[in-house]
Amino acid sequence: MEASLNFPTETPLTEDLLLNCIENGMSHFKDEEVRAIMEMTSIKTFKKGTILLHEGEIPSKCFYNYKGCVRQFYLKDGEERTTSFFTENQSVTSTAISTGGRKQGSKYYLECIEDTTLSIASHEQELELFKQFPKFETLCRIETERELTQYQEKLAYYIMTSPEERYLNLLNNRSELINRVPLYQLASYIGIKPETLSRIRKRILMK
Amino acid sequence: MEASLNFPTETPLTEDLLLNCIENGMSHFKDEEVRAIMEMTSIKTFKKGTILLHEGEIPSKCFYNYKGCVRQFYLKDGEERTTSFFTENQSVTSTAISTGGRKQGSKYYLECIEDTTLSIASHEQELELFKQFPKFETLCRIETERELTQYQEKLAYYIMTSPEERYLNLLNNRSELINRVPLYQLASYIGIKPETLSRIRKRILMK
Repeated sequence: MEASLNFPTETPLTEDLLLNCIENGMSHFKDEEVRAIMEMTSIKTFKKGTILLHEGEIPSKCFYNYKGCVRQFYLKDGEERTTSFFTENQSVTSTAISTGGRKQGSKYYLECIEDTTLSIASHEQELELFKQFPKFETLCRIETERELTQYQEKLAYYIMTSPEERYLNLLNNRSELINRVPLYQLASYIGIKPETLSRIRKRILMK
Repeated sequence: MEASLNFPTETPLTEDLLLNCIENGMSHFKDEEVRAIMEMTSIKTFKKGTILLHEGEIPSKCFYNYKGCVRQFYLKDGEERTTSFFTENQSVTSTAISTGGRKQGSKYYLECIEDTTLSIASHEQELELFKQFPKFETLCRIETERELTQYQEKLAYYIMTSPEERYLNLLNNRSELINRVPLYQLASYIGIKPETLSRIRKRILMK
């Protein structure tokens, strides 16, 4: 099931990417440590439309998004249901890592909806990095705790809000998504039909 | 803001509690390590109705639930909105830990809705444990990754389902909650008014 990872473009480890890493959480590391960590992972650019993970496939890699957009979706009664967008400087969900390597088929798909540059590590590479750099495990623990808090807040927010409130929240906090993502995916993401989202958008414009 | 933690009953570190810990994730530890870890945290029983954390309060402790039920709720337009129930062998959300000690007021309340026995550790105690037992940090990292996966799945599930599907899911997977939790809290948790939940329950009974 490696087919979906074929034909990406190798992306060189540029100073830009290194700096980006250091600014986004690796500031406790010496530059040479960051370089060593980055060199153990690979960085690849995938074409728009690439499926990184299929439903049923055993996830074996984790992804960190440097540039582009990855969509998570489920198939429910034959219909795509979009549940997440991962953009710049976000970890992309990976059950491979998130369950400590437990072998379980994925319930969802991951699709690049733009040309997307990702850092990729296998579960084995991650464990090796933890062994070589215990500080890296601490960084990952803190990052995972931060992400957990975000997901707990996202779930609470979703429980408490109407689709219109969710759309307004996207406009205010992730407005770049509105232009990058097709309407039907956005609608699905906030839990409504595209027609309902069109009505909400009209109502907001008229205010 | 420590007032909400007053007057709990001290609970002795019994063999039962130790065994429970070992069975739930600490199986990689020697018994004496588990004992040392457990002795650095404290175990207390709180009366039903105790507020463990208020909105605006800086969270300074993390809780693990041995017995009982903790409800997380937000106040939105003066109305309680229930967003989580933490029962036996679940970590209770704690922003103190989840943001690596960042000092930020809580957006929600934590309330014991039954007499509840919790293991309690401060952020400082947690860091000390990580220093003394690096294996404990690994355990916490894996546990946090597992929880993150669960929350990602919960959010995706919530996005994809109707309130009726959510209620049926509770019946099938967390049926104990139905008897332990007041109807208005359950309704809020699945995103509807109590009247709507009553109608759903009647519809299901008639099938």
